[in-house]
Amino acid sequence: MLTPESSGATTPVTTTASKLTKAGIEHMLPNSNGNIPGLAALDASKMTTTLTTTPRSVPEWNGAEARAQKTCTDHMVTARWTAEEGWEAPEMKPYGPLSILPTASVLHYATECFEGLKLYRGYDGQLRLFRINRNCARMRTSAERIALPDFEPKELEKLIIALCARDGRKWLPKERAGCFLYCRPTFIGTDAALGVQRPREALLYVILSCFPDMSKSLATPAPPAMTGAANGKPNTSSGLRLIASREDTIRAWPGGFGYAKLGANYGPTLVAQGEAKARGFDQVLWLYEKENWVTEAGASNFFVVIREKTSGKLQLITAPLTERIILEGVTRASVLELCKERLAEGREGVEGLEVVEKRFTMDDLVAAHEEGRFVEAFAAGTAFFIASVGLIHFRGKDLVVPTMEGESGIYTRVIKEWLVDIMYGREEHEWGVVVGEE
Amino acid sequence: MLTPESSGATTPVTTTASKLTKAGIEHMLPNSNGNIPGLAALDASKMTTTLTTTPRSVPEWNGAEARAQKTCTDHMVTARWTAEEGWEAPEMKPYGPLSILPTASVLHYATECFEGLKLYRGYDGQLRLFRINRNCARMRTSAERIALPDFEPKELEKLIIALCARDGRKWLPKERAGCFLYCRPTFIGTDAALGVQRPREALLYVILSCFPDMSKSLATPAPPAMTGAANGKPNTSSGLRLIASREDTIRAWPGGFGYAKLGANYGPTLVAQGEAKARGFDQVLWLYEKENWVTEAGASNFFVVIREKTSGKLQLITAPLTERIILEGVTRASVLELCKERLAEGREGVEGLEVVEKRFTMDDLVAAHEEGRFVEAFAAGTAFFIASVGLIHFRGKDLVVPTMEGESGIYTRVIKEWLVDIMYGREEHEWGVVVGEE
Repeated sequence: MLTPESSGATTPVTTTASKLTKAGIEHMLPNSNGNIPGLAALDASKMTTTLTTTPRSVPEWNGAEARAQKTCTDHMVTARWTAEEGWEAPEMKPYGPLSILPTASVLHYATECFEGLKLYRGYDGQLRLFRINRNCARMRTSAERIALPDFEPKELEKLIIALCARDGRKWLPKERAGCFLYCRPTFIGTDAALGVQRPREALLYVILSCFPDMSKSLATPAPPAMTGAANGKPNTSSGLRLIASREDTIRAWPGGFGYAKLGANYGPTLVAQGEAKARGFDQVLWLYEKENWVTEAGASNFFVVIREKTSGKLQLITAPLTERIILEGVTRASVLELCKERLAEGREGVEGLEVVEKRFTMDDLVAAHEEGRFVEAFAAGTAFFIASVGLIHFRGKDLVVPTMEGESGIYTRVIKEWLVDIMYGREEHEWGVVVGEE
Repeated sequence: MLTPESSGATTPVTTTASKLTKAGIEHMLPNSNGNIPGLAALDASKMTTTLTTTPRSVPEWNGAEARAQKTCTDHMVTARWTAEEGWEAPEMKPYGPLSILPTASVLHYATECFEGLKLYRGYDGQLRLFRINRNCARMRTSAERIALPDFEPKELEKLIIALCARDGRKWLPKERAGCFLYCRPTFIGTDAALGVQRPREALLYVILSCFPDMSKSLATPAPPAMTGAANGKPNTSSGLRLIASREDTIRAWPGGFGYAKLGANYGPTLVAQGEAKARGFDQVLWLYEKENWVTEAGASNFFVVIREKTSGKLQLITAPLTERIILEGVTRASVLELCKERLAEGREGVEGLEVVEKRFTMDDLVAAHEEGRFVEAFAAGTAFFIASVGLIHFRGKDLVVPTMEGESGIYTRVIKEWLVDIMYGREEHEWGVVVGEE
């Protein structure tokens, strides 16, 4: 519950600034979120372009270089912001290292946020981005949470599209229909002042990286050595193998920042993730509180298909956004919307289901499993796409998820196909944004 | 409660590695915390030295340049680590920007931790560090939590001392007795792979920065414009003005990482801190849970002196470390130890007190205040040192802390003097580590 005073503290600074003296306004500048009258706004139309003179070769699709996830395309886009001037003109320039002072805010106080989206080469030969407006809007929300300056999401969209248009033709050629590049908009506090304070200087940048197709590599059964590490049992199930988080490791909490795509949500999960991998699992299933509320799987949202006990109806269930402890995934939203639209009634031999955002616990899953009501589970996110879950290891027990047809269940497969069709231009859909090529 | 299985997951990798094949060991390397047999350990004795050819001038003590907190001394120490080789030879070299790839782990996943300590110029002419062993041990704990590699804390101590010895004579000259430089050991994940995973490359570095004396600047009453912003009331109290955190903003939680000095603990507090400053307060007093447990003040530990209701005895109280939601401050530990040793009995007209680490709530403070039992409050940390607290704003009400003698209460003043005497060499003490000068 917010007291009237607490609500007052959320009043945007721009509203109160008009009541203040010039000194007062200057004092408040670093507390505001950009777009102040008199400060330049982010403006993609001002972008300057310096092309590379040392173009690099494009790695093989899904080859070793792509799997290393270190290779970016020839160019990147950067845009610098200062509290004094606002946004400088963005620059398209050769990809290369950033020069960052050892005192920079991002290196000490994690003043950083990012986005992840993919550039798809369609089967119709066109390049597409998927719901880019959602990523750019979320980037603004994340920036606000981590005290980085404000910008118009539409301008970030233009910068992303400009980079994709520049490097798409060479790095994702028409022969690679059904393939993608990974786009990573990143925003960091570059203020060189060591004090713990809102950065007065920041850098927004966009890079395009060669990525492996992780939805496939992870659905592959773990190698024998790793299966052995997981309780010595053979790997009988396909799909992702999840291990429930330990009670002493919590990913996010109400009043925190689990809903925002901040670096601070990822680094602190790496120890648990490393332990999970060393034990032969693919990802951690993040639980919350003593009740073991199920929240996210790795860095993806988590869905289950369960037959409701009393009504006997099928439900597609995922954790709700209300507590702000999970990320509002673009894939998550798309799954929910598509299933509401296309699966409410059932079709072509596929039973209809109800789409439900609600809290559910590991006990709910265990009970559903014991009673034969647990139908499917999958993780959904940009990097891993729609990844079938085959097993959940929870407090010493393996919950093997029934998969109806080989590698993934029917709902997982249908949802994945629908999304693939939109992403790769088999279906004309407003979510698939065509990118022109230079 | 940990299940046996959960405990198993904490087993150090080095213990299980011997059971594995070579392939298994290689797989597990990125999950381990350095110091693996066959990988080089951090070794200060291997340090190479390249001195600057463009020495800079030293800013005025507490002047504008120092207040900007952007100026570092002529040199820095860096040490690179890779999962393949371990620690490379540390380098003493000219201070300057780092070249960091746009995909570096630290810029996306906040794989970063740091320490803060001061180099003091004693009244006896000598340079001293204060309990440097504690900072280096904590840095190792922080690194472990954020999936950065392990090192021997003693080696980090040597690197810090080497830098202080190199730049101390010029940047903190003998004329500046009673002054200090701020030392910032920093550890970042520099792995260029974009995947969410333990960094396979990292950089440890140590810098020395010119800092203002914040314990004084913050104890000064806020300027008139800012006093006006805080409920329009004149600033009648001296000392820090704290505002209790809102119910929708929580700094740390059990199962998280509030005990470690990670960037991820700082960036997410900047919005609340900026709002506090805009309203005329110095820092946020971080509360936890519905009970409003009092945890930290800004980025410092928080202490109160209260007369216990039933016994009538004075108590020095600070939040306990048991839940791992607060930082185990070096200053915090020193205050506790000194007071246990020197104030249990009372001395020289100062009433004795009991030292207590326990949970306490805002309601406890309000009740003590109403009943005339609230004696003093102060924040304790390296950056702000011992800073008297004058006011706590909580849910629309001001709790003015009685201060017995002008700027700070007697306990705050006595504790500060004891520490100053050790830091600046007025008292010979094992906590004051003398640094030789080059």
